[in-house]
Amino acid sequence: MIQKMPIKLNDNESIVDLERNGYSIIQSRDYFCFGMDAVLLSSWAQAKEGETVVDLGTGNGIIPILMEAKTAASKLIGIEIQPQSVDMAQRSVEMNEQQDKIQIISGDIKEASQILGKNAAEVVVTNPPYMKENSGISNPESAKAIARHEIKCNLEDVIKAASELLKPSGRFYMINRPRRLTETFVLMNQYGIEPRTLKMIHPYVDKDANMFLIEGVRGSKSMIKVEEPLIVYKAENEYTDELLQMYGKR
Amino acid sequence: MIQKMPIKLNDNESIVDLERNGYSIIQSRDYFCFGMDAVLLSSWAQAKEGETVVDLGTGNGIIPILMEAKTAASKLIGIEIQPQSVDMAQRSVEMNEQQDKIQIISGDIKEASQILGKNAAEVVVTNPPYMKENSGISNPESAKAIARHEIKCNLEDVIKAASELLKPSGRFYMINRPRRLTETFVLMNQYGIEPRTLKMIHPYVDKDANMFLIEGVRGSKSMIKVEEPLIVYKAENEYTDELLQMYGKR
Repeated sequence: MIQKMPIKLNDNESIVDLERNGYSIIQSRDYFCFGMDAVLLSSWAQAKEGETVVDLGTGNGIIPILMEAKTAASKLIGIEIQPQSVDMAQRSVEMNEQQDKIQIISGDIKEASQILGKNAAEVVVTNPPYMKENSGISNPESAKAIARHEIKCNLEDVIKAASELLKPSGRFYMINRPRRLTETFVLMNQYGIEPRTLKMIHPYVDKDANMFLIEGVRGSKSMIKVEEPLIVYKAENEYTDELLQMYGKR
Repeated sequence: MIQKMPIKLNDNESIVDLERNGYSIIQSRDYFCFGMDAVLLSSWAQAKEGETVVDLGTGNGIIPILMEAKTAASKLIGIEIQPQSVDMAQRSVEMNEQQDKIQIISGDIKEASQILGKNAAEVVVTNPPYMKENSGISNPESAKAIARHEIKCNLEDVIKAASELLKPSGRFYMINRPRRLTETFVLMNQYGIEPRTLKMIHPYVDKDANMFLIEGVRGSKSMIKVEEPLIVYKAENEYTDELLQMYGKR
C-alpha cells in the first residue's frame, strides 16, 4: 500500500482505485467517468523511454495516469478544454506523485500544436467524443455532453492536431466506435497518418463490434494489418482472458 | 443428379463439382482456380429478384455461377479480360444450363460502364487482383499473374467502374486482403460508395485477419457497422460452423 498525499475533494467527487502501481483517480458524478475504452487504449498504446506522449482531450487524466504506469514514456501531456476536468486531473497526478512525468494543460485540441509546438511528440493518443454534435444532446453545455459529443471538436480536428503534433514516423493511437471507421480511414489518409494496425472489439465473438483500436504512423507507406479481434465476454459477466490481460489481471 | 450437357474440354481443363444445385465449373491448371474467397463472396453478396448483378473480373465465372444458385438475382453478368477465361466461363454456364440468367462478356473492367451503360446494375461484386503490380511477378503476361496482380487493372479502376455501373443506392460487395483496407475505404469514399458492412475473416480466432468482406452503398450517408468476425478454423483442418454455413453445408 502506497501512502497517498492528502488531497482536496469537491462536492460529488470520489477517489477510484486504479489497481495499478497503487494509483488512484478522482472522478465526479457531474463529469465523464472513465470506462473500459480508456483502459483498453492505455494498454494498447505503446511508448518507449525518451518518448513524449500527448493525450488529446484527457478528461480527468485517466490515459496519461495509466500510461505512466504501463509504459516507459518519459513525458506524458494531457490537454483538456474543461477547466474543472483539468483541475481534477492535476489533483490526481499530485495524489499519485506523478508530477515528474505527467503534465495536464488547459487548452483546446484545435490549438494543441500552437501550445506545444509542431513535431512535439513521438506518440499521440486519444479517446475522442464518439458522437456527432447533433445526435440527441439535451444540454450541449454540460460537461458530459462535451466529453461524448463533438461540441468543442470533431474527429477531423483531433486527427489534424495529431498530425501536427507528431514527429515524422510518430505513432497515433485512438479508440473509437465502428460507425466512425470510414471517416477515421479517410481523415488519417488525408492528414498523412497511415493506418498500421486495426483491432476490432466485440462484446461477444458472435456480435457486431462496438469499439475499435487503431494505430497509425505519420508519413509511413501503406501497410495495415488487422489483428485478432478482442472479445470482451466469454459468458454473461465473465470476461475473456484477453480482456483481463488488458486490465493487467492476467 | 442433374443430367449435364456434353461439354468440350481443352488440354489441362477439368470439371469440378460445386456441390450446389448440381452445378459444376470448368477449371484449367494454366488459369487461376477459384478458392475460398469466391465461395465466401458469393455467400455474402445479396441480390433480390429483378436485380442485375455485375461481377468485375469474373475469371472462370465462379461468382455468377454460385450467385445464380444462392440468390434470386434475375440477371448476372460477368466481365473478364482474358479470352480463354471467358470461353471457359461460357462453357460452364452452358453446362449448367444457366444461359437464361448468366451472361459472360469479354471486356476490360475499365470500360465496363461503356459496355454495359451507366447505372446498369443494382449490385456489383468483385474478387479483384489482391497484389500490387510490382510485387514479385515472374511472368506478367501469364493468366495467373493477371488474375492475382494489378496488371490489367488496379483497385481504383475496379471501384470507379463499380461506382459508374451502380444505380443510386446500388450495392457493392468485395472480398480483398486486409493490407488493402485503407485504400478500399479511401477509394470507396472518393467514388461515392459508402461502406455499410465490414466483416473481417481470421484463419483462427487468435490470428490476424487474412481477408475481409465489405459491402457499400452508392450515394448513401455514413453508417458502417462491423459484423462479428468470420473465423475459418476451430482446430487444424476443422472448419467452424460459420464457415461451413458459407459453404452451404450447415
